Amino acid sequence: MSVSVINYNRGMVRWEPDARGRLEQAALALYGERGFEQTTVAEIAERAGLTERTFFRHFADKREVLFWGQDALMALVTAHIADALDSASPFEAVGGALRAVGEIFEGRRAHARRRQAVIAANPGLQERELIKLASLAATMAEALGRRGVPQPAAKLTAETAVAIFKVAFDRWIRAGGDDDLTHVIGESLDELKALTADT
Amino acid sequence: MSVSVINYNRGMVRWEPDARGRLEQAALALYGERGFEQTTVAEIAERAGLTERTFFRHFADKREVLFWGQDALMALVTAHIADALDSASPFEAVGGALRAVGEIFEGRRAHARRRQAVIAANPGLQERELIKLASLAATMAEALGRRGVPQPAAKLTAETAVAIFKVAFDRWIRAGGDDDLTHVIGESLDELKALTADT
Repeated sequence: MSVSVINYNRGMVRWEPDARGRLEQAALALYGERGFEQTTVAEIAERAGLTERTFFRHFADKREVLFWGQDALMALVTAHIADALDSASPFEAVGGALRAVGEIFEGRRAHARRRQAVIAANPGLQERELIKLASLAATMAEALGRRGVPQPAAKLTAETAVAIFKVAFDRWIRAGGDDDLTHVIGESLDELKALTADT
Repeated sequence: MSVSVINYNRGMVRWEPDARGRLEQAALALYGERGFEQTTVAEIAERAGLTERTFFRHFADKREVLFWGQDALMALVTAHIADALDSASPFEAVGGALRAVGEIFEGRRAHARRRQAVIAANPGLQERELIKLASLAATMAEALGRRGVPQPAAKLTAETAVAIFKVAFDRWIRAGGDDDLTHVIGESLDELKALTADT
C-alpha cells in the first residue's frame, strides 16, 4: 500500500489520514485470512497501524466494518423513490433508486467481492445481510406508499426490486468484465420484465 | 378443545392421539401469551397434557415447533418445478410450485396468523424465517437450473417467486374474506406481471 502514514500524536492532538479506510482494509484482509470470528479488534488495529481506540471511534464493533452505511443507503433509496417523476410507474421509481445504489459501488468491486466472501463463510453474517435486505424492501415499500402506490403493489414492487438487486449484485461480483453494477441492475430489470411477460 | 385424551400408559406402551398437533397448539398459545423466549418446553408439555419426553419425540426444541416441515417444503417445490410441462416458462414452473405450497395451508389460516404474530415479536425468529425463505429461493433456482433454465434467469425467477410468496402470504393472513392462499398467490403473480409490463 502506498498510503503514507502520518501520526500527529502530541497530547490530545491525533490525526490519522483515512483511518477509516485503513481499518476497513485491514479488517477485510484479516476476516478473509483467519475468519470473522477468529479476528479481534486489537489485530485489526495493529494491522492498520492504529490503536483500538481509533477503531472504536469509527466502528461500534467488528461486525459494523461490514455493515456500516445502512442508514445512508435507506435514506438514498427513500429520496430517489420520492423524487421520481410523477409519471414514473412503481417499477421505474424503484429502478432509479436501485441504479443510484449501484453508483455507490462504482470502482469498489474488489472490495465488495472480498466482503461477500467473508459473509458467505459465516452464518451469523449471512443472517445480518438478509435482515439488511428485508429492511431495504420495507423502506422501498414505505417510500412507494408515500407516492400513492396502493397495496399490494407497493410491497410486491419493493420485494421484487430487492430480489433483482440481490441477483444483479451477485452477478456483478462474479463477473469478469468491467460492467458496472448500475448496468447489471438495468439488465436484470429488463430480464425480469421479459421473464414475467413470457407466461 | 373437543379432542378426547386417551393415554395408554402401561409399562412401555404409550399412545397419545395427535400429540404433535396438541403440542403445536399449546406452544403457539403460550408463545402468544408469554412470548417465545419466556416459554419453556415443560410448560408446553403441561398445557398439552403430555410429558416433556413426548415433546422431544416430536420436536428437537421449542423453535422447531414453528419451523418443522422445511425439508418437505423444499422437496415439494423441487418436485413441482421438475414435473412442470416442458413447454412451461420459468415463471409458470415456479407459479405451479407456489400454488402447491399454498395448498398446504388450506384451512390453516388461523394457525398461520398466530405463528406469524409470534415470529413478528421476536428478532431471532424473524432471522430464522428469512433464512428459510432464502433457502426456498436457492432450492427453486437449483430446480430451474435442472430444467435447463440458464443463469441469471433461474436465480431472478426464484428470488422473484419468493418475493411474490412473501407478499401473498402476508396479504392472505391479513385478509378478512375466505380466499385461499393459492388464489392470492395467483393474483400476486398476475399483479407482478402487470407491474413489470408498466415500465
